[in-house]
Amino acid sequence: MKQNVLIIGAGGVAQVVAHKCAQNNDVLGDIHIASRTVSKCEAILESVREKGAMKNDGVLKAHQVDAMDTAAVAQLIRDTGVEIVINVGSAFVNMYVLDACIETGVAYIDTAIHEDPAKICETPPWYANYEWKKRDLCAEKGVTAILGAGFDPGVVNAFARFAIDLMDEVKSIDIVDINAGSHGKYFATNFDPEINFREFTGVVYYWEDQQWKETTMFASGHDWELPVVGTCRAYQSGHDEVHSLAANYPQADVRFWMGFGDHYINVFTVLKNLGLLSEQPVVTAEGQEVVPLKVVKAVLPDPASLAPNYTGKTCIGDLVKGTKDGEDYEVFVYNVADHKEAYEEVGSQGISYTAGVPPVAAAMLVATGEWDAKTMKNVEELDPKPFFTILDRIGLPTRKRIGGLHGVDTAWNE
Amino acid sequence: MKQNVLIIGAGGVAQVVAHKCAQNNDVLGDIHIASRTVSKCEAILESVREKGAMKNDGVLKAHQVDAMDTAAVAQLIRDTGVEIVINVGSAFVNMYVLDACIETGVAYIDTAIHEDPAKICETPPWYANYEWKKRDLCAEKGVTAILGAGFDPGVVNAFARFAIDLMDEVKSIDIVDINAGSHGKYFATNFDPEINFREFTGVVYYWEDQQWKETTMFASGHDWELPVVGTCRAYQSGHDEVHSLAANYPQADVRFWMGFGDHYINVFTVLKNLGLLSEQPVVTAEGQEVVPLKVVKAVLPDPASLAPNYTGKTCIGDLVKGTKDGEDYEVFVYNVADHKEAYEEVGSQGISYTAGVPPVAAAMLVATGEWDAKTMKNVEELDPKPFFTILDRIGLPTRKRIGGLHGVDTAWNE
Repeated sequence: MKQNVLIIGAGGVAQVVAHKCAQNNDVLGDIHIASRTVSKCEAILESVREKGAMKNDGVLKAHQVDAMDTAAVAQLIRDTGVEIVINVGSAFVNMYVLDACIETGVAYIDTAIHEDPAKICETPPWYANYEWKKRDLCAEKGVTAILGAGFDPGVVNAFARFAIDLMDEVKSIDIVDINAGSHGKYFATNFDPEINFREFTGVVYYWEDQQWKETTMFASGHDWELPVVGTCRAYQSGHDEVHSLAANYPQADVRFWMGFGDHYINVFTVLKNLGLLSEQPVVTAEGQEVVPLKVVKAVLPDPASLAPNYTGKTCIGDLVKGTKDGEDYEVFVYNVADHKEAYEEVGSQGISYTAGVPPVAAAMLVATGEWDAKTMKNVEELDPKPFFTILDRIGLPTRKRIGGLHGVDTAWNE
Repeated sequence: MKQNVLIIGAGGVAQVVAHKCAQNNDVLGDIHIASRTVSKCEAILESVREKGAMKNDGVLKAHQVDAMDTAAVAQLIRDTGVEIVINVGSAFVNMYVLDACIETGVAYIDTAIHEDPAKICETPPWYANYEWKKRDLCAEKGVTAILGAGFDPGVVNAFARFAIDLMDEVKSIDIVDINAGSHGKYFATNFDPEINFREFTGVVYYWEDQQWKETTMFASGHDWELPVVGTCRAYQSGHDEVHSLAANYPQADVRFWMGFGDHYINVFTVLKNLGLLSEQPVVTAEGQEVVPLKVVKAVLPDPASLAPNYTGKTCIGDLVKGTKDGEDYEVFVYNVADHKEAYEEVGSQGISYTAGVPPVAAAMLVATGEWDAKTMKNVEELDPKPFFTILDRIGLPTRKRIGGLHGVDTAWNE
C-alpha cells in the first residue's frame, strides 16, 4: 500500500492527471503537482477546484521544480511525503525523475519513453537505451517503476496482453491509433509538437519475423475498418510500445499504425523536406543559433488550446492474431473516446484525456498493491484485468471483438 | 562623365554585377566590392579572375563595410575614389547607402525598393515612404540616383516606357515574370528567401481605374501564352515597379504577374498559414526570441548554390495596351534568358543574371553621361533606347511583338 501522489508536468496531460487524481483522492491521498513554471500548476489546480473534482477534502498543492535536477525532485518527494510519482513532464526528463524515485524508494509511473533532445530514433529496442538500464537497480531496491502507462504506450500494451492471454500462441500485434476528431485549426498537433514530430522524422522501426525492420514515415499505409469511426487510413509509425512488446513477445510481429489525413501529411512533408523539423540547430544570417523544430513548436497552437472546440472521437485498439486449440484466432481490443465529453469533464481534449487517465488508474493499482511490483515493469507484464476494471469506471471503457474487426462487439469482461 | 564603381553586397546578384563590371572596365574604371563579410567579396573577385573577365588590366578590390553605417560607406567612397555606387546589398540597406552617395555627391544605382525589416507592404506608392523623400535633395545637390535598375523593377520599366512611346495613349501595363527553369531541389527561392517571401505575405497592391486596389497572393491567376516558355500560369503579386509606373502613368492600369507552380504555392501556403513567414519574432518554449522567416531562410538552399544545376529559361515582359491613330494598339516587349548560359558566363543562375546585368548597363550609361541625370529617377523616366542597346550587347537582348502576345516577333529596334 502506497499513498500520496506527486505529478510532474503541467501540460494538457498533467491537467487530466490532476483532475483524475482529485476524483480518486480517497484512494490516492494527497495530490502535489510540480513543474518548471509554478503558475501553470496553479492554473491546473484552479481548474480542479472549479470543477469540484476533489472526492474528499484533502491536500492539493503546486510546487516549482526543475525536473532535470534529480536532487531537487528527490527533495520535493521527501518534503511532500509522496509515495507515488506520476511523471507526465517532457519526455526529456524521465531518467532524472526515475533516478529521484529510486533514490527515495518511491513508485515511478510515466507515459512515454525517455528521449535525448539531441537524438531521434535511437537503436531499437528503445527502452534498452535508457529505462531498462535501471531495471536491476529497481529490483534490488524494491522500487516499483511502471513504464509507458499512458494510452499508447500503456493501455494498448494491456490490450495486447489481454488478447494474448485468450489464445495459445500469438502471431501478430497491430496497434491502430485513429483520431477522427476535428479541432478546426489550419494545423495543430494533439500533444507537444516537438515530441509529435520527433516521432515521425526518423526511421520507423517495427518487429517482423523475429527481427527489427525499418521503413519510413507514410511509406506503409493501410485502410482500417474500425468501430464507430469507420474506415480510416493509417500509416506505420515508430512508437514506444513496439519496443517492449517485441521484447516480451518475440515470436509475434509487432507494428504500430497511426491515422493521418492528407492535409497533415502534406504539412508534415513540407516541413520535413525543408529541414524545419530538425532537432539540430541552424545558424541564421544574423548569426543566431536556433533549433528549427523549436520554432515550429512556437508558431503552432498550444495543444491545450484546442480543447474547447474539439469534436469527434478517437478509436485506439489492438488487432491481435494467433491460434487457439489449433485454429486461427483473432481479437480486436479497443477503446473509443470523445473529445467533447473529455473537455466537459476535465477541460482537456480527447488525446490528453486518453493519455492522462491511464497513469492515474496505474497509480490507484500501485496504491492498492495490485500493481506494486517492487521492480520495473512495462504494462504488458502486469495483470490487465484490474487495470481495465478501473479504466471502465474512470472514463476509458475497454471493448473487444472476438474474431477480429468484424467480430461481435462486447465489453472486455462479457 | 563618371568613373570607378563600388558594388555594395556579395550575394548572387553582386557576383553577376562584378563579372559584368569587369567585362566593361574600359568604360567603368576601377571596381571595388564591399559587404559585411569580406570573404564573400573575395570569393566573387576570385571567380572574376578565374573566368578572365577583366577587359583591361585594372583595379579589382574587396572591402569590409557595414552598409547600414552611412558614415562608413561615405568614407569608403572617399577612400576608393569611386563616382558610381551599385547597391545590390539587402533591401534593408538602401537608404543608408543612398545617404552616403548624397553626402559624397556620387551616383547611386539600386535594383529594389528599400524595406524596413519590421514592416511588410507599406502604404502605396511604396517609393514615397523612403526613396522619393530624398528626390528634392538629389535634385538640389545634382546627385544622380537611379532607382530599381534591375530586371523587375528596371528593364520592365524601360519596356513600359518604350511601348508607351510607340502609342498615343496608354491604357494598361501588365508585367509578366515567368521562370520556366528547374533547379532540381525540393524547394528553393531564386533570390534571398527573406525578401522573396516578404513580397508575397502582405497585401497585393495594383493600380486600376486611377486608384490603388488590393488583392491577396494567389487570389488572381491568369494563363499567359508567352514566347519560348509557352503557356504559364501567373498570379498578381505586389512589386516595386507598379508603384512608380502608376505614379508616372496614372491613366494606365498597372499590374504585375509572377509565375508559380502548384508546388511552390503549396509550400508557401503551408509556411504562411503556420506563421513561419512572419517577420515578427516569436518566443520558443526555452525563452529564445526568434523571427520565423529568418529560420526559414536559414534552412532553405542558398540561391547562389542553385546555379550549377539550373536549366531552362526565363521570360519576362510587358504587355502594354493603348491606342494609336484612334485604333487599339498593343505591344509585348520582353527578354528570354537561359539559366545554363548565365552559369557558364558568370557562375550564377538566370534570376541573378537578369537582376545583375541591368544595373551595370545603367552604370555604363551614367559613366558615359547618357543617364547621368543629376537627380533621382525611376527607370521609365530615362530614355530606354541606349539602355536596350547596351543590354543587347552584354547579354539581355530585348525583343518585341507589335500587336501583342501573338504579334510578329522582332528585335526591339527592327
